[in-house]
Amino acid sequence: MSTITPFPRAEHTPELALAEWTRTLKRSMLREMLAVVARPGILSFAGGLPAPELFPTADFAAATAKVLATDDRALQYGPPFPPLKNQIVDLMASRGVTVTADQVFITTGAQQALNVLARLFLDPGAPVILEELVYSGILQAIAPSQPQILSVPTDLTEGIDVEAVEDYLLAGHRPAFLYTIPVAHNPLGVNISPAGRESLVELARRYGLPIIEDDPYGFLRYDGPPLRPLRALDDEWIFYVGSFSKILAPALRLGWMIVPDSLLGKLTVIKESYDLETSAFIQRAVAAYLAGGSLPAHLERLRSAYRQRRDTMLAALKRYFPASAHWSRPDAGMFIWVELPGHVDTSALLPQAVDEIQVAYIPGSAFSATGGSRTAHGQPDAHNCLRLNFSNAACDQIEDGLARLGGFLRNYC
Amino acid sequence: MSTITPFPRAEHTPELALAEWTRTLKRSMLREMLAVVARPGILSFAGGLPAPELFPTADFAAATAKVLATDDRALQYGPPFPPLKNQIVDLMASRGVTVTADQVFITTGAQQALNVLARLFLDPGAPVILEELVYSGILQAIAPSQPQILSVPTDLTEGIDVEAVEDYLLAGHRPAFLYTIPVAHNPLGVNISPAGRESLVELARRYGLPIIEDDPYGFLRYDGPPLRPLRALDDEWIFYVGSFSKILAPALRLGWMIVPDSLLGKLTVIKESYDLETSAFIQRAVAAYLAGGSLPAHLERLRSAYRQRRDTMLAALKRYFPASAHWSRPDAGMFIWVELPGHVDTSALLPQAVDEIQVAYIPGSAFSATGGSRTAHGQPDAHNCLRLNFSNAACDQIEDGLARLGGFLRNYC
Repeated sequence: MSTITPFPRAEHTPELALAEWTRTLKRSMLREMLAVVARPGILSFAGGLPAPELFPTADFAAATAKVLATDDRALQYGPPFPPLKNQIVDLMASRGVTVTADQVFITTGAQQALNVLARLFLDPGAPVILEELVYSGILQAIAPSQPQILSVPTDLTEGIDVEAVEDYLLAGHRPAFLYTIPVAHNPLGVNISPAGRESLVELARRYGLPIIEDDPYGFLRYDGPPLRPLRALDDEWIFYVGSFSKILAPALRLGWMIVPDSLLGKLTVIKESYDLETSAFIQRAVAAYLAGGSLPAHLERLRSAYRQRRDTMLAALKRYFPASAHWSRPDAGMFIWVELPGHVDTSALLPQAVDEIQVAYIPGSAFSATGGSRTAHGQPDAHNCLRLNFSNAACDQIEDGLARLGGFLRNYC
Repeated sequence: MSTITPFPRAEHTPELALAEWTRTLKRSMLREMLAVVARPGILSFAGGLPAPELFPTADFAAATAKVLATDDRALQYGPPFPPLKNQIVDLMASRGVTVTADQVFITTGAQQALNVLARLFLDPGAPVILEELVYSGILQAIAPSQPQILSVPTDLTEGIDVEAVEDYLLAGHRPAFLYTIPVAHNPLGVNISPAGRESLVELARRYGLPIIEDDPYGFLRYDGPPLRPLRALDDEWIFYVGSFSKILAPALRLGWMIVPDSLLGKLTVIKESYDLETSAFIQRAVAAYLAGGSLPAHLERLRSAYRQRRDTMLAALKRYFPASAHWSRPDAGMFIWVELPGHVDTSALLPQAVDEIQVAYIPGSAFSATGGSRTAHGQPDAHNCLRLNFSNAACDQIEDGLARLGGFLRNYC
């Protein structure tokens, strides 16, 4: 029988010791705001939510029913599902990227891919290149390594400032990776220009700079055909991250990476350490849905609806917003970026907007890679900016909400 | 337009630089073996797989159909689903643990909980206490921190050696945490004795030692009522990890933690960085299944079937295995641990067993916390041991397979 020594007189109450890095752990401003503005009666352009009324729910329900009725491996542990990997090969081919099924790495959503890649590449305190305005999910993924963030500006029409990237590399920095969303940047809505894409890939090759290409919106282009990913230009330095969240549904938590064959072993072990494997049930249900052949028509419906919503929002911005406001004109994705005069503080105004006009947005500072302070490049810290989502509200709500928000902001511009 | 300086003469081809810790990254011996022995025609007692023919597939299919037909949030992003948290409160109550819904933290399987807790507690190179024979998932979760592993023996009838734990603490070690499976230890099948449980919790309190209590098998006890978790004895130092993988189905990838309210904020941000959130669809489908009320009857069916399989395996061990073999007599879980004479090398014999008699097991060394070398405590490195799973094969297969395996092993004992 186990016995331990008698309890000594307690001289102090022990305190729970957490890992050192957790002292710097910040609450997610973005997700906390989303929780606040999710109150009933609020017209929210804040979240990055797809339109639930456009989910292919009936087709997906049929796929899940079929899988559960006919596939006796559907609820068991299982390796990545080969038919799904082949379907992703076809999806990538539709974007002009040739890959093998072996290079397709199934993940539990794109966020897992970002976290796994951060673990693969990032030593404690190592440098990474991020845009000054950046999707907060990558900041969360790298936080435990407490990296040195080398930030570069993003132009509202050309995308990431490739010369600023090169400046860092010429100065001798050797970042663990660069992260970017080349199509429909979140939050800015911009695509990297064709010349910028070529130059960025060239820098990656020349300096051995891995690029994490996050592509949640690449299948949602509204003007012209889908753009080719950076991965189409290079198969060694570009780590492509794809997602079913915006083209099928977020609750699937299903994504993928395209990675060099040589890294499959290490990535497999890292991914296992996270969640053993991605749900065999979800993988098989999505494969059954895709096998039904209705994705292309579904994507066309999405693009048509979102195009109309974007156009409605752009027109409403012109009609209702102050003359001093400027905004991006995205041809893909879900977001429009609005810049107001420099004296306007969109964070300070948000609670008022929610209370007075029941309209919500995300303040620009929520996307600051450097925590909201003015950056080394002298670019605004985005305190006077806001992000508007156009995918989750119907056209009449967009018209109504932007009329209210425009009227509200005119008081401060 | 972005322009970069002309390409200089390439003086060297850049090489991909990975994080330092990945040099030590080991492939998962356990999961690689499982892949090898998954060949058709192999009678495998290797995996930790539940019996797929016992999955409540029809009831779960009805639950998913209902959720998709009636719940318009089922495929959207969403916070942890309150009804599911309440159902987990009830599940915990059925084990004698009183918790609030706020203390229930939904995870994408139990493995995610282990990884999130490792991130919360573990500084690089910090010490952790593990049993010498340990579930490999925790080793994978802690690997990036390259911890110092303080290993303790486990008694085949009493469980973890609590005095060895105390020795480390008395010697001044302050481990980031201790990890254990108190009910139906994997791979050993043993429960921690009642006295050992009390002593272990006492040490946790006295020294401020967080204990990660991994409880995948706690609802599957075959002799007597379910045992109370350690969490029933302490709500400050015990971090309980539960899972639906073994009581419903692994492909749900659904688990939970019970954690102090004070840590919810930090854990939420860490979990978000992993996969944003656990599938709202799966959470709602499982909640609908649980609301149907058939879990208790399902658990009774599982316990009855697995009890019979365990008894069949114990009888077959007695009938067919060499007289020099010893084994554990688990009253819960899925595994029996077999010790053979010290000169037998079960790793070396496995390929032969698979080829000659088409029977597979997992060699004991796959569970070594210290990588298969003889430990400081002089306990065997388990090279002469093997783990047998009794949940995934029918009774006639168990009888047949153990007859073959026993006959095979007699040649070497």
